[in-house]
Amino acid sequence: MSSKSGHGGNIYQAAKEHGFSEEQIIDYSGNINPLGVPRTVKEAIIEKLDMLSIYPDPEYHSLKKVVSEYVNTSQDNIIIGNGATELISLFIKSIKPQKAMLISPAYSEYEREVTLLGGQVIRYRLKEELSFKLDIDNLLEQLKMGVDLLIICNPNNPTGQAIYLEEMRKILGFCRANDIFVMIDETYVEFTRNIEKVTSIPLINEFNNLFIIRGVSKFFSAPGLRLGYGVVSSKELRKSIEDRKDPWSANTMAVVGGEALFTDYHYMDNAKRLINEEREYVTSFLKELPYIKVFEPDSNFVLCKIVEGDVRADYLKRSLLEKGMLIRDASSFPFLDNTFFRVCFLTRDQNKRLLEELVLIFNKGVV
Amino acid sequence: MSSKSGHGGNIYQAAKEHGFSEEQIIDYSGNINPLGVPRTVKEAIIEKLDMLSIYPDPEYHSLKKVVSEYVNTSQDNIIIGNGATELISLFIKSIKPQKAMLISPAYSEYEREVTLLGGQVIRYRLKEELSFKLDIDNLLEQLKMGVDLLIICNPNNPTGQAIYLEEMRKILGFCRANDIFVMIDETYVEFTRNIEKVTSIPLINEFNNLFIIRGVSKFFSAPGLRLGYGVVSSKELRKSIEDRKDPWSANTMAVVGGEALFTDYHYMDNAKRLINEEREYVTSFLKELPYIKVFEPDSNFVLCKIVEGDVRADYLKRSLLEKGMLIRDASSFPFLDNTFFRVCFLTRDQNKRLLEELVLIFNKGVV
Repeated sequence: MSSKSGHGGNIYQAAKEHGFSEEQIIDYSGNINPLGVPRTVKEAIIEKLDMLSIYPDPEYHSLKKVVSEYVNTSQDNIIIGNGATELISLFIKSIKPQKAMLISPAYSEYEREVTLLGGQVIRYRLKEELSFKLDIDNLLEQLKMGVDLLIICNPNNPTGQAIYLEEMRKILGFCRANDIFVMIDETYVEFTRNIEKVTSIPLINEFNNLFIIRGVSKFFSAPGLRLGYGVVSSKELRKSIEDRKDPWSANTMAVVGGEALFTDYHYMDNAKRLINEEREYVTSFLKELPYIKVFEPDSNFVLCKIVEGDVRADYLKRSLLEKGMLIRDASSFPFLDNTFFRVCFLTRDQNKRLLEELVLIFNKGVV
Repeated sequence: MSSKSGHGGNIYQAAKEHGFSEEQIIDYSGNINPLGVPRTVKEAIIEKLDMLSIYPDPEYHSLKKVVSEYVNTSQDNIIIGNGATELISLFIKSIKPQKAMLISPAYSEYEREVTLLGGQVIRYRLKEELSFKLDIDNLLEQLKMGVDLLIICNPNNPTGQAIYLEEMRKILGFCRANDIFVMIDETYVEFTRNIEKVTSIPLINEFNNLFIIRGVSKFFSAPGLRLGYGVVSSKELRKSIEDRKDPWSANTMAVVGGEALFTDYHYMDNAKRLINEEREYVTSFLKELPYIKVFEPDSNFVLCKIVEGDVRADYLKRSLLEKGMLIRDASSFPFLDNTFFRVCFLTRDQNKRLLEELVLIFNKGVV
């Protein structure tokens, strides 16, 4: 179960280990929008509880319609899944990559899926000296070594860096010419300053080697729904994925909730405003601290490096947990060591509390 | 998507084709308890809607505890899944059968999963002349042809016949001696007259070649929750299944709902009483009709054969759908032809309405 404990946001384990109830833990590790699940979602679920007695529509017609309007593409391009996780798994099973290149450090689930099927994962190392920004020409050069799948998280977790539309078009063009499929995980894309400049969905009709994954766990604060969606660039790929899919993997509450949240523009506006403000607040504060280096993010979380003193990420995490605050020790990510940690932006009060505590810990040093 | 349209209970498609809304269709094809989702489940979901903002516990500790008490076995034997469907799929991926024997006619999903992985399915044909009751000695004889997995649905869908505990012990003993794994799908077991005589869960400590699957879709009338559970007989099998499992495949509402329903003994008692009464009412009525042969079931549905006249299952289904009633044309099951149909037991009024309409159609014949 190592892959599971490797995820952020396991507040169950953290709570158990530190004598808290789950509700008492403030979770800065899960990268989840602090506004909580939209009120419209709760109302929709309450209204439609009787629908639990019937199977979800196996074709998910009505939900696909709402999603396609939300992302502005055809319904025929949409696949509904049990969280982004199921879609990652189905996509990788469908194309069975022999050699997948993974922009790293990255989320652990991609690697697990490729290796489970016997494929090889080559990690493309983002360079710290470039602040983990992608050097595209260097990437294209390395893709020539027989890679058949490129996996990108955009913006990337844990580094928080985004690749912009024109850069992505260049990557996709190169990959198409070299028979390389590209999977882009846009889990965090709604948190970017300008989604239009980051999302690759407009490229879906231009490139037939593209698969985009999104979910509602982070931006819509609804990881409990287990609802993800994929945007596919070809009918063949959609069919191949749907043939492998368990029928009804997204449950009725996910469908009902999903139909409500993708039209809740009021919630979306509030969330974007809050994250923009808190990103500015937290990163400005952290940048003033001499012992921390901040990798300026275009996401709802920030990767930090400890550059002075004897505090390390595991110690910082343990010390904060004693106060009921859970952060991500980033040393479990490839290419990162125990000087790296990641925190996400919550409400102003919560962010302030974290920053104050963090300063105290660093000022005290390891005791 | 043929495997999906092969399921009963697709009221979305039926409604669309006949100009009804989903709510206007009475579904005699889905084998779902007519009492609807337990009130306790709805109350628990409403109370815990805020939990949608956190990930489900990837270990499902609290739900496993409730399930293990419900089925009276150790928590270590329990696996939680996204409906029985995910567990069937994970189990088959774990043991990768080369040659699976499937007691047939049966639910289509087993066969799909085995063949998706390149395995061969051999259908053991239940004999109509034995009223589809299993001839165990004959089965054991046929298992000798290099079979490595035996798949049994107990009680069986669509035949409604149950295999009893002592018979199952005999099958399991033979299979253990011959290195054959046994997967038993107990989706309908709570509807039997005496569950203690049918369930194989007491055998889980006795045989290490056993995997039992159950779900909440049918008996607890909650297919929209997508909640299933498996009972495993060995640690190795549990680990192998869990290693392949997407984290959090059962969502938070499934967990919250599940924790409520497995302790709702009031609901369970009512459901059992209703099904016992309605099984008696419907089958007694049908047995009086000269043009229908009834295969006496130990489940919440009955398989019928048309033995006189020109009405066939497809015609019967179409005619009933015009009145908003959906039954299962059973001709899509292996070894059954267009004289077979299946109906499940709903409330007395609904059953009465179906039987009256059915008599009218048969008396009129094909028009």
